[in-house]
Amino acid sequence: MHLRPNLGIDGDRLWSSLMEMAKIGGTPKGGCNRQALTPEDGEARALFRRWCEAAGTTVRIDPLGSMFARREGLEDLPPVLIGSHLDTQPTGGKFDGVLGVMAGLEILRRMEEAGIRTRRPIEVVNWTNEEGCRFAPAMLASAAYAGVLPVEKALDTRDIAGIRFGDALESIGIVPDRPLGGDKIAAYLELHIEQGPILEAEGKEVGLVTSGQGLFWYDAVITGFESHSGSTPMHMRDDALVAAAQLIEALRKIGTEANPPGTATVGQFEVFPNSRNVIPGEVRMTIDMRHPDPAVLRAMDQRFHETVAALQKGRIRIELTQVAATQPLSFDPGMLAMLREEADAMGISHRNIISGAGHDAFHMAKIAPAALIFTPCAGGVSHNEAESIEPHQAEAGANLLMRAALRLADMP
Amino acid sequence: MHLRPNLGIDGDRLWSSLMEMAKIGGTPKGGCNRQALTPEDGEARALFRRWCEAAGTTVRIDPLGSMFARREGLEDLPPVLIGSHLDTQPTGGKFDGVLGVMAGLEILRRMEEAGIRTRRPIEVVNWTNEEGCRFAPAMLASAAYAGVLPVEKALDTRDIAGIRFGDALESIGIVPDRPLGGDKIAAYLELHIEQGPILEAEGKEVGLVTSGQGLFWYDAVITGFESHSGSTPMHMRDDALVAAAQLIEALRKIGTEANPPGTATVGQFEVFPNSRNVIPGEVRMTIDMRHPDPAVLRAMDQRFHETVAALQKGRIRIELTQVAATQPLSFDPGMLAMLREEADAMGISHRNIISGAGHDAFHMAKIAPAALIFTPCAGGVSHNEAESIEPHQAEAGANLLMRAALRLADMP
Repeated sequence: MHLRPNLGIDGDRLWSSLMEMAKIGGTPKGGCNRQALTPEDGEARALFRRWCEAAGTTVRIDPLGSMFARREGLEDLPPVLIGSHLDTQPTGGKFDGVLGVMAGLEILRRMEEAGIRTRRPIEVVNWTNEEGCRFAPAMLASAAYAGVLPVEKALDTRDIAGIRFGDALESIGIVPDRPLGGDKIAAYLELHIEQGPILEAEGKEVGLVTSGQGLFWYDAVITGFESHSGSTPMHMRDDALVAAAQLIEALRKIGTEANPPGTATVGQFEVFPNSRNVIPGEVRMTIDMRHPDPAVLRAMDQRFHETVAALQKGRIRIELTQVAATQPLSFDPGMLAMLREEADAMGISHRNIISGAGHDAFHMAKIAPAALIFTPCAGGVSHNEAESIEPHQAEAGANLLMRAALRLADMP
Repeated sequence: MHLRPNLGIDGDRLWSSLMEMAKIGGTPKGGCNRQALTPEDGEARALFRRWCEAAGTTVRIDPLGSMFARREGLEDLPPVLIGSHLDTQPTGGKFDGVLGVMAGLEILRRMEEAGIRTRRPIEVVNWTNEEGCRFAPAMLASAAYAGVLPVEKALDTRDIAGIRFGDALESIGIVPDRPLGGDKIAAYLELHIEQGPILEAEGKEVGLVTSGQGLFWYDAVITGFESHSGSTPMHMRDDALVAAAQLIEALRKIGTEANPPGTATVGQFEVFPNSRNVIPGEVRMTIDMRHPDPAVLRAMDQRFHETVAALQKGRIRIELTQVAATQPLSFDPGMLAMLREEADAMGISHRNIISGAGHDAFHMAKIAPAALIFTPCAGGVSHNEAESIEPHQAEAGANLLMRAALRLADMP
């Protein structure tokens, strides 16, 4: 039986916080451009700090800029962490990451106004640079927190303009006042939009994430032979763009045959010399393949390599660099069982789900019992200014998050 | 019987002029980057002017920057024009266009030192912006000269950086001092490298161009739907890059089935938002289709449009803009007969050939008897820094050009 069965978050306040945060870096098309460590990110951080302090918490910053708003517990025990991120894609939406942080804030506010004290402290975290569009890799600060990425390497990461992560931190006035990780954590919870269409299609209020996709990322350089588009017979061409097009189509088939839940995507793509009447001599492209089953992911990767080998005819050469290889991840079964029990007790409909995207919870699962809760988003659309959710969906997810957080924080 | 049977050009001087011109905008890989109306083009123009004036001619500039080096005739008759271009592709070679201008210069020098006066004036033309890689369309200045393109439209053309053609002219100090076209021309001659593999394969010294390919150029904008690469199931995607890849492969088939001599090429290609973990929402690309038979070109175009229609599934939309439509062209039979006669008289091996590429001669053929002579290039490679020809090939082509020019200039 739950200790505080009637306590829930204030759905209207949660929604208005989301809408107010969305104004910072808001785009004409209704999305957000609030990339990590830009002035917009700085403005979002200042607002989050004001809100957290008004809710009676103390905010501390770690060396990578992640913000921890702490509500003390009754005992000196390891805290329960609730986290996500306030940074966005360049043409991102209002909810990706932000929902998880604003739901955490709403829990702090509700506890403060209801005078609730838990045994353990509760901390709400805004992780720096989750998106990875400005500084690669994605989930940089939680990776460093979990000891996966050395802090010096993280600070020395540069964006496409050559700006160092450490210098970008300073440029928006971030002054660290706590160490990076190191403390024991009782549990980690994250609420996030699904960024996929499954929950909406099945009418479920939340998804309980059982596992995360393994991921292989490659950079490919395809070299062909530049020549005149009008006078080079078709059979004498080594067109790098034609080879790239055939690789894209092969990847689409590899992804489709492994879907659901496998995916294969080419997102970045550049052609040289990029002249209307010159047969392209070079293409640079990225490859992104994902699957939650390591054996299937390896089989997809093998087919990809076979395709690459078969395309190297004539003067066509394809050079691959693997830039990321993330193993599939299973979330803590005990945490999942607890979430199922709480959702059932609250009458919140749920299903198990696999996470196609990476999240900070993936890194935190390496150092603490962790759980990731998904809420639906319209059409599964994300990384897009049209990203959209309903207030009642945000409220249901935040209520489950609060129940789980209070239960974990009252653990002995 | 020819009037001056023993007069030929100086092959060594022609070659050293080609090599000296190639230093301007010379690339580490041995090619040239001397795009139209850049400072490098300005430097090439200044050198050409010095050389022409030293050969006793007067250089005048038309409103689009084309340079006319005129050697007066004995009578006040319409001139014979010899022309080509000094601009290059961004990763172009040393001979495309330059051979024709340097061969013309060499004829002027030889006439000056031998004291030859023809009845008609001879003018050697350096046409502005033949390549079309900076300002579209290609052959812009000769099109305007021939009345195909209005001069104001030509001046208002902008490059990808938004720079106006007229402003680019001024920026490298070009001051026009003659009107655009309008005068009657007795004949037009152009010498150019083949940019294809046929003459080399058959061991012919020159190709006499009977016709030019018709050409359709399109700009395509493919719109799909941006979404997250990890969490959007394959069957729910509207990936603009996948649609573009399928269009590229379809165009390769359309070109291959019409080849020889038909071609189909995608040369320029850009992807948005161009982020590793975002399914592309937009692709912008160019399409280039060519065939010398108008009926076959129309059939290729029809298949292309059918492919575009079939690809518009889900949220995929393809918007086409036709940016060029050049009808196939037949060169003057009388000029061809004259060239055959002269080549036979000089013992220069020749064959008829179709031009896959467009040339300034195509526009000039609309307003004067015109002829286009090809010389071989190694492996048919052009629009490539590796473009290469032999000195004896340049000499044979230039000698035929000179014989033809003198014969035409002595016509009553």
